[in-house]
Amino acid sequence: MATCSPAVFTIRVYYEDTDTGGVVYYANYLKFFERGRTEWLRTLGMDQYELATREHVMFVVRHANITYHRPARLDDNVDVHTVVADIGASTLLFAQEARCDGRLLAKADIQVCAVDSETFKPIRITPSIRNLLEKARN
Amino acid sequence: MATCSPAVFTIRVYYEDTDTGGVVYYANYLKFFERGRTEWLRTLGMDQYELATREHVMFVVRHANITYHRPARLDDNVDVHTVVADIGASTLLFAQEARCDGRLLAKADIQVCAVDSETFKPIRITPSIRNLLEKARN
Amino acid sequence: MATCSPAVFTIRVYYEDTDTGGVVYYANYLKFFERGRTEWLRTLGMDQYELATREHVMFVVRHANITYHRPARLDDNVDVHTVVADIGASTLLFAQEARCDGRLLAKADIQVCAVDSETFKPIRITPSIRNLLEKARN
Amino acid sequence: MATCSPAVFTIRVYYEDTDTGGVVYYANYLKFFERGRTEWLRTLGMDQYELATREHVMFVVRHANITYHRPARLDDNVDVHTVVADIGASTLLFAQEARCDGRLLAKADIQVCAVDSETFKPIRITPSIRNLLEKARN
Repeated sequence: MATCSPAVFTIRVYYEDTDTGGVVYYANYLKFFERGRTEWLRTLGMDQYELATREHVMFVVRHANITYHRPARLDDNVDVHTVVADIGASTLLFAQEARCDGRLLAKADIQVCAVDSETFKPIRITPSIRNLLEKARN
Repeated sequence: MATCSPAVFTIRVYYEDTDTGGVVYYANYLKFFERGRTEWLRTLGMDQYELATREHVMFVVRHANITYHRPARLDDNVDVHTVVADIGASTLLFAQEARCDGRLLAKADIQVCAVDSETFKPIRITPSIRNLLEKARN
Repeated sequence: MATCSPAVFTIRVYYEDTDTGGVVYYANYLKFFERGRTEWLRTLGMDQYELATREHVMFVVRHANITYHRPARLDDNVDVHTVVADIGASTLLFAQEARCDGRLLAKADIQVCAVDSETFKPIRITPSIRNLLEKARN
Repeated sequence: MATCSPAVFTIRVYYEDTDTGGVVYYANYLKFFERGRTEWLRTLGMDQYELATREHVMFVVRHANITYHRPARLDDNVDVHTVVADIGASTLLFAQEARCDGRLLAKADIQVCAVDSETFKPIRITPSIRNLLEKARN
């Protein structure tokens, strides 16, 4: 696990995120975690639209392991913490948390895989992207 | 307006469709109406994935005018009624209603436009598609 | 129509917002417009969760009239412009636009109605809320 | 693991389910799996709206472990297979799969917990519900 402090991205909860139970719908945490990963990549200078259209690289999720601890509600500010825990040949492992006022809402390990944006076949992470990712871990 | 009886497609309300107000979230009626249009097109033998990939035709929404009458709730069965009200050179006008136990929930006029799936430029509806649509109106 | 300049709230487009056509899914503009209205109300000091739980007031959408002009894509920044066009006894009329780099994507008139959060029956907008809204228009 | 054959619920993929990558957005499998669980409960005579409003019981997800194998696309029919793998004092463990034409798209273990619908505190599954669940496993 990287010792660097996690990137934090704050998300406001709107009506669209909630369900009739009065809380954020469980699938929507996967949206929040993706926003966190996307913003983390953006701070490294990686724009996913450009990656997909110019370099034909997409990061797709292979595995997600999520534990739900506390519910969030309308108007809450959810802080998504993102850390890269491991970098493989084609894969990245993210360790992410969603917190509100410091308290843990949900926690996830998300493995993403670099694929060709046409064929969805795994491809090796290019040295230039790997360099950016490695630097961000330290 | 066509005198034919509308096609009806029934949709169950799940947690994902609701919000913390205890009712179906207002944007989700546009999802329901699209499912209704899609199933109506499918009964005419039009599969949108094939249209997009083989003929490079997509139907995109240009205008939506929706009135909300009554809320729907978790586990309700929503009947989406779909009628084609007008067929233009590139456009279709749908008149749609969402009902539960016969009572009106929401009502919409939705104008869709045939576009090239690459450029998003309007294109004329082809004679073969027009034929199918015209027949379905009577 | 108020002569004040509209409030602007910027929304990033994520994968969750797009569809296989390569653009933002049409129903999601209603989510973006709601975020714009919510943030506009928040700048006036109105928090919808508090309104609903303490004062039992909810604003629900009665009517939405949307025209789609241009598509937005992954990673775009969408600016939601929000103006209150009219204030009735129980209703507010919002005029909203979604723009990207200044160009119009979609435009909507949205009428919302104050309702009791239990019964969903319309209620008069209270003088204290009306005061806040009137001030914001000038 | 129960030896009974899984309940199967088929879901059509619409535009709303897809993203600009051309495939079903990863979070939406959690929606599909929830529809599968809900329909499975419904076949046992359990309606979640009634459970929540009359008996103040809600099932909330505590843990989800999902592996993504193949993408689904617009117009695909996704078969959601649902099996109850374990019944605890307050929890149910579901083993679920999403398949298209028999091929595995995604697989998940989902643990849900019975909670009080007001306090979100775990509660014991009542004997009458437990009876229904136990019967369904054999």
